[in-house]
Amino acid sequence: MSRRLQIAVIGSSKSICTKKAYRLAEKVGEEIAKIGATTVTGGGHGVMEAAMKGAKKQGGLTLGILPWEKMDPHNKYCDVIVATGIGWSRDAINLNSCDGAIIVGGGAGTLNEATYAYIEDIPIVALTTSGGMAKTLTGIYFDERKTERVIGTRTPREAVTRLLGEIKKKKKKSKRPGIIQRKRDY
Amino acid sequence: MSRRLQIAVIGSSKSICTKKAYRLAEKVGEEIAKIGATTVTGGGHGVMEAAMKGAKKQGGLTLGILPWEKMDPHNKYCDVIVATGIGWSRDAINLNSCDGAIIVGGGAGTLNEATYAYIEDIPIVALTTSGGMAKTLTGIYFDERKTERVIGTRTPREAVTRLLGEIKKKKKKSKRPGIIQRKRDY
Amino acid sequence: MSRRLQIAVIGSSKSICTKKAYRLAEKVGEEIAKIGATTVTGGGHGVMEAAMKGAKKQGGLTLGILPWEKMDPHNKYCDVIVATGIGWSRDAINLNSCDGAIIVGGGAGTLNEATYAYIEDIPIVALTTSGGMAKTLTGIYFDERKTERVIGTRTPREAVTRLLGEIKKKKKKSKRPGIIQRKRDY
Amino acid sequence: MSRRLQIAVIGSSKSICTKKAYRLAEKVGEEIAKIGATTVTGGGHGVMEAAMKGAKKQGGLTLGILPWEKMDPHNKYCDVIVATGIGWSRDAINLNSCDGAIIVGGGAGTLNEATYAYIEDIPIVALTTSGGMAKTLTGIYFDERKTERVIGTRTPREAVTRLLGEIKKKKKKSKRPGIIQRKRDY
Repeated sequence: MSRRLQIAVIGSSKSICTKKAYRLAEKVGEEIAKIGATTVTGGGHGVMEAAMKGAKKQGGLTLGILPWEKMDPHNKYCDVIVATGIGWSRDAINLNSCDGAIIVGGGAGTLNEATYAYIEDIPIVALTTSGGMAKTLTGIYFDERKTERVIGTRTPREAVTRLLGEIKKKKKKSKRPGIIQRKRDY
Repeated sequence: MSRRLQIAVIGSSKSICTKKAYRLAEKVGEEIAKIGATTVTGGGHGVMEAAMKGAKKQGGLTLGILPWEKMDPHNKYCDVIVATGIGWSRDAINLNSCDGAIIVGGGAGTLNEATYAYIEDIPIVALTTSGGMAKTLTGIYFDERKTERVIGTRTPREAVTRLLGEIKKKKKKSKRPGIIQRKRDY
Repeated sequence: MSRRLQIAVIGSSKSICTKKAYRLAEKVGEEIAKIGATTVTGGGHGVMEAAMKGAKKQGGLTLGILPWEKMDPHNKYCDVIVATGIGWSRDAINLNSCDGAIIVGGGAGTLNEATYAYIEDIPIVALTTSGGMAKTLTGIYFDERKTERVIGTRTPREAVTRLLGEIKKKKKKSKRPGIIQRKRDY
Repeated sequence: MSRRLQIAVIGSSKSICTKKAYRLAEKVGEEIAKIGATTVTGGGHGVMEAAMKGAKKQGGLTLGILPWEKMDPHNKYCDVIVATGIGWSRDAINLNSCDGAIIVGGGAGTLNEATYAYIEDIPIVALTTSGGMAKTLTGIYFDERKTERVIGTRTPREAVTRLLGEIKKKKKKSKRPGIIQRKRDY
């Protein structure tokens, strides 16, 4: 695979984002940029903004995937914007568009995204020290099928390094079903 | 608006892409890159691949928005990939995610995208000389509401320049409704 | 196939619906109910409302598939309502959810739906006498792939009878690709 | 509101559905039918099939909302089928298309749907005695915003009665944001 890796950062939106989660997300974005990967978020504020801000600080590339039909408003650190217009159903698109995801803080929206990662067998790590869902979900499986455990990590660097390892393992033999491309193109 | 412009190129997929349409799409991608805008396509082959290839030749940024749930396969000129997983419904996302669109060649899929641009009042020009839908749709309105006429142009440079003019006009007073962002964030 | 047939009626929304198109759509809904099929529309007004009104007059079942996130507002003849929340991307869902479609009048939105039917190889007939897109699209193929021709018909009864014939032919050997169900369920 | 109520039953898909959850879901469907409401599910097997089977036993109406692009396969108790073609993003559509939801058993997919109900402020009760997510989620809020608590109930009848009460309360003053219908129609 020659394409650039894409790593999603999911977590607290503005209304529930603590200062600590914001600061940690910024560091996570920096670490993602340092390994040359693109930082993918929902394009909003809180943890999403912080991760993209960090990525830009290190010259990284950023992609924001919005729920709305219009490209504005979005946070000012998005290099590329996708306006899905499909509301919260876009959570699935964020996860489909990453090789792996990192949870920083987070509430119900983050839980929604994390369950999708589980269902689709997408590697996911939590920055446990950032609190919120990241802490709650550390080490758990969502059900008895045990598709994908949420791996706990303690620092932004560890989160990115650990996720990279998981992504490499996964590439070898993905259980992920995925929708198969059809023969006809339009 | 400080963000980078995003311009979509829509047109013939591989199975109906003529050599002429491919060559012209490549030039369109080059012109888009020259004005510093991001080239947005469906991430497939034919005109999509050509436009992104042209954009990369000039150091431009490219975004491919796929219908599938997985990021692969896609053409090799995508800097950023979005795997929507919503099938052909993703045509709407391509249009939502651009400031304006250029038609090069094209068949039924292109017509689908062009009607969406019309409905949402997104500026659209056709490279008439590329044939296919670009030729068929030049100068027409899709219905009596006359939301948006497809403007015909004769060269890649004219297509980009003309579209830029339309985008600037539109920014002043957009009739585009759009889904309004909601107060609560998640 | 033991399930009840589902037939979509697509056409003029309120702002462009002529009295003639409304009256014809009502008759189309009646004919659909008479053969025991469910009438599927976008749940709005104009032709959508008329077809469902006709279906209810004959004791038929009706399904409205809305673009919005909320179930209201919708026309008062919907027995079952689906609120997709994905905006105009829902056009594809309307077509996926029918065995065949009938065009009555119509503008740009109808054209969008008709191209989707073409791309997905879903049987489609136009009630030519209702004007608008129904007239414009009669007899055409959308591109050189010639997937599906829009068949012209002159009366509501002929439209339904002809469509039934096409649906039966199609069942025998569908070229329609479709997204394949995946092995794991969630 | 004169339209028929729509109640979603979410829970264990076939691979994790216990006999107890299946039996209880069947009773839930019966109770929904008895109050004249439509039973909405994802159209699959396990709890989805059971609830629809129960509803049909009591002469109720049923709606199945599939993730796939094709209307088949689905369980044999669906009166009306919607083939969304948007994969697991369809979970949001199931919730948008109900006035309230009942959890019976369930794993990760159910959790995904429950978080969506929370985010969108849709009334939701759990049949605690059915185990799985229904048990795990009883009484909890998903985050500190405390939008919607999952209410625990002990019998199918109590689940439906309690949900009805919540729906009536909600109708009076909905906090639910929803995407606003736009002025132009297509």
